[in-house]
Amino acid sequence: MSSQYPDDGLSLHTDLYQINMAETYWNDGMHEKKAVFEVSFRKLPFGNGFAVFAGLERVIEYLQQFRFTESDLLYLKEELGYGGDFLAYLKDLRFTGTVYSVVEGELVFSNEPLMRIEAPLAEAQLVETAILNIVNYQTLIATKASRIKQLLGDEIALEMGSRRAHELDAAVWGTRAAYIGGFEATSNVRAGKKFGIPVAGTLAHSLIQAYRNEYIAFTKYAERHKNCTFLVDTYDTLRSGIPNAIRVAKEQGDNINFTAIRLDSGDLAYLSKKARKALDEAGFTDTKISASNDLDEETILSLKAQGAKIDIWGIGTKLITAYDQPALGAVYKMVSIEDDGVMQDTIKISGNPEKVSTPGLKKVYRIINRINKKSEGDYIAMEDENPQEEDHLKMFHPVHTYVSKFVTDYDAVNLQQTIFQDGQLVYELPRIEDIQTYAKDNLSLLWDEYKRPKSPEEYPVDLSQKCWDNKMENIQRVKEHVKSLNQTI
Amino acid sequence: MSSQYPDDGLSLHTDLYQINMAETYWNDGMHEKKAVFEVSFRKLPFGNGFAVFAGLERVIEYLQQFRFTESDLLYLKEELGYGGDFLAYLKDLRFTGTVYSVVEGELVFSNEPLMRIEAPLAEAQLVETAILNIVNYQTLIATKASRIKQLLGDEIALEMGSRRAHELDAAVWGTRAAYIGGFEATSNVRAGKKFGIPVAGTLAHSLIQAYRNEYIAFTKYAERHKNCTFLVDTYDTLRSGIPNAIRVAKEQGDNINFTAIRLDSGDLAYLSKKARKALDEAGFTDTKISASNDLDEETILSLKAQGAKIDIWGIGTKLITAYDQPALGAVYKMVSIEDDGVMQDTIKISGNPEKVSTPGLKKVYRIINRINKKSEGDYIAMEDENPQEEDHLKMFHPVHTYVSKFVTDYDAVNLQQTIFQDGQLVYELPRIEDIQTYAKDNLSLLWDEYKRPKSPEEYPVDLSQKCWDNKMENIQRVKEHVKSLNQTI
Repeated sequence: MSSQYPDDGLSLHTDLYQINMAETYWNDGMHEKKAVFEVSFRKLPFGNGFAVFAGLERVIEYLQQFRFTESDLLYLKEELGYGGDFLAYLKDLRFTGTVYSVVEGELVFSNEPLMRIEAPLAEAQLVETAILNIVNYQTLIATKASRIKQLLGDEIALEMGSRRAHELDAAVWGTRAAYIGGFEATSNVRAGKKFGIPVAGTLAHSLIQAYRNEYIAFTKYAERHKNCTFLVDTYDTLRSGIPNAIRVAKEQGDNINFTAIRLDSGDLAYLSKKARKALDEAGFTDTKISASNDLDEETILSLKAQGAKIDIWGIGTKLITAYDQPALGAVYKMVSIEDDGVMQDTIKISGNPEKVSTPGLKKVYRIINRINKKSEGDYIAMEDENPQEEDHLKMFHPVHTYVSKFVTDYDAVNLQQTIFQDGQLVYELPRIEDIQTYAKDNLSLLWDEYKRPKSPEEYPVDLSQKCWDNKMENIQRVKEHVKSLNQTI
Repeated sequence: MSSQYPDDGLSLHTDLYQINMAETYWNDGMHEKKAVFEVSFRKLPFGNGFAVFAGLERVIEYLQQFRFTESDLLYLKEELGYGGDFLAYLKDLRFTGTVYSVVEGELVFSNEPLMRIEAPLAEAQLVETAILNIVNYQTLIATKASRIKQLLGDEIALEMGSRRAHELDAAVWGTRAAYIGGFEATSNVRAGKKFGIPVAGTLAHSLIQAYRNEYIAFTKYAERHKNCTFLVDTYDTLRSGIPNAIRVAKEQGDNINFTAIRLDSGDLAYLSKKARKALDEAGFTDTKISASNDLDEETILSLKAQGAKIDIWGIGTKLITAYDQPALGAVYKMVSIEDDGVMQDTIKISGNPEKVSTPGLKKVYRIINRINKKSEGDYIAMEDENPQEEDHLKMFHPVHTYVSKFVTDYDAVNLQQTIFQDGQLVYELPRIEDIQTYAKDNLSLLWDEYKRPKSPEEYPVDLSQKCWDNKMENIQRVKEHVKSLNQTI
């Protein structure tokens, strides 16, 4: 049974090849060479025009707690056959690197460095898997939530997908990401406690079943709870659910707040309009209508087009599983490594041109027009460049290089903050409410064309001339090396 | 920050309405009434003809550890405003129910009871969310893995999706589910340790980048590792990767086992055929070819149709996220509740006929033909029925009731085992290898028509006459009750 190891840590939460490579480096005396890796993704999810970065808080926790436990070391020795000296090295290993990262709630785009990990080679290698595991999922959900929330405006969005989430962690960290993306509350109580997110929820069909009588069930609930949202579709929404809800609300009078009714099946457009009319006629004009049932962007748009009278939207499966695109493909690529005390660029070539990495130590800037306060795009420059110093900043498309523009009167905002310095956390974690606000405020930087849910314009993510030249030189260097091998199959 | 609560348990891993309902029951003195809930799903995932049940081990852990911690109770009081007496009740609450369940590795189908939870009403309610969260995901992944493994036959299937999994739990529990579904190994070391699953992995592009020279990188790896799988697509698969792998293998001779090369990008059909030829010509006829790159059922079938020479299949994103259908919709429905000491059936009606629950205490049997050892279908009967006692068992479709057959000379195998008896674990957890074997052996019970990956025949899941009559009576009773209310909006 899985509880056999009481000291289950997360340092083994990595792919086996990371440990094999660490061993190779250690064996060769390479393991403490300084290496630099970057996290980036190649394609925005859901056809969206931007992504909302999330996952940093858990990455920080993970890196702070990084250590191999006794049982980890025993497993590596007994079951996988790793040698004693290497294990002695692992035993004392802590994360001592420096981490730069965009912050949670930041709007991010394809092919830009989101995080930069500078650490002794073996350490940087071992932490890859967990970092991607965390950032890929949380960023995916924050992005999906932001898409949905944009459609809802000031209407309330509730995350309620725990039962369909991919195991327990996804339920809680996913709903935190949904909150970052703009959702008002979650049904998951543990997430509420753990992160300080508002929680919401009232009653399920089983309450009505337990009393085997809807009227009695509503009455019993009302006797204990001041705020009442009655779920009305257990037996028959129009002939039983809504009339019983109104009846109980009238009988209870000021004893309760008849907050809402909830529709969870059937034709939500039709039922919500009928419900609104009935509630209004009964004098409950302030009572809200809450709806749920596999809702996503498409059904929300359709319901709104049909004039559905829904005030509160319960979003489950489609959000927490990112149903229409359940993976973000962020990768972790080495961009530089120490060689004889000097940092050298590294590159990965691929038959797929979009998979070729961009080498070297880089920073990413958001170029914000000072006049209209809108972003002109993101600008990736080499470490030693400072785009703020340019009078006329040339921004050009990194593939279709003839697409270019000059920008003047701008602020070049460095998007990455220092999170760890030589293994020490130097970043103060913000409150979750502030992360949500930050994400929301950031949206005003983007022109509407980048924010529409279908076929948005492509937001510019450009390389500096120096960065582009450096990439081409590195590609050329590798090509020449391969050619010089003079071998093929 | 999320580590603010050192005693983070799982009892709050539930939807808020479960706690609200528990409070209502408690307030009304209903909370200890015996209630019976069933877990079932309505639709098989991926268009598959069966599902592979998984998740029981973690559900057991969860139920055994179920208790509200001090910080849980404080949160419920201070943040959510629950009252002291109710909290005193929660403080001492343990799971005291009886649980019947199909076992992990069992082949299961739509609309049949997978688990049955009999417990005091409030307890049964509080555990719903976590049980579904666990069973939905793990069953989904075991099913997906089984689909993929069927296509691969004796070829090796490796799970390697941790970086794209939905947070940390999904990576480890998902890969355990993949193992149950027939996969040979995982790349996730923590899962290997935690569950005793074989782990696999060698080296990544970063090793070659770290040495900035592929030949040296392979050589350094070979100096430390006896079994070598060389990843050959960092710079140029045909002109650099494969020739360097062969060169190093020749130089190392008996120092290493040249186990495999790995292709991770490009045209896998073309490259694998070129690689096979080159390896054979160099005398490495036993060296395997491993491939990966967003593989799923469709790409596997296509590669096989093209004659690709792949021996080892690395499956990542598409399996661990169940990419083409990332949610299983298992639900947890009350089927019976104690009323004045007598168990009474309960039902949930819905505008969607397939969502109407099947009331009453039931068992599910697999009807196995004694002559050909194949299953005739599953048969859901009321608790007091024994289908083994029939001479001629009538099996009829629960919707299209004219579709029927009589079965003779069969074994009626009760699929559910007793897991908890009055809160005590009475089930002995099997070894993971035995679960995998059980799942594999079970497949032989099914005719091939139920197992094909596309458009399989629908496997019969039938109700006994008594069970069907009981459902109709319950529907009628509710309809009459609603009618008697004589109210509508």
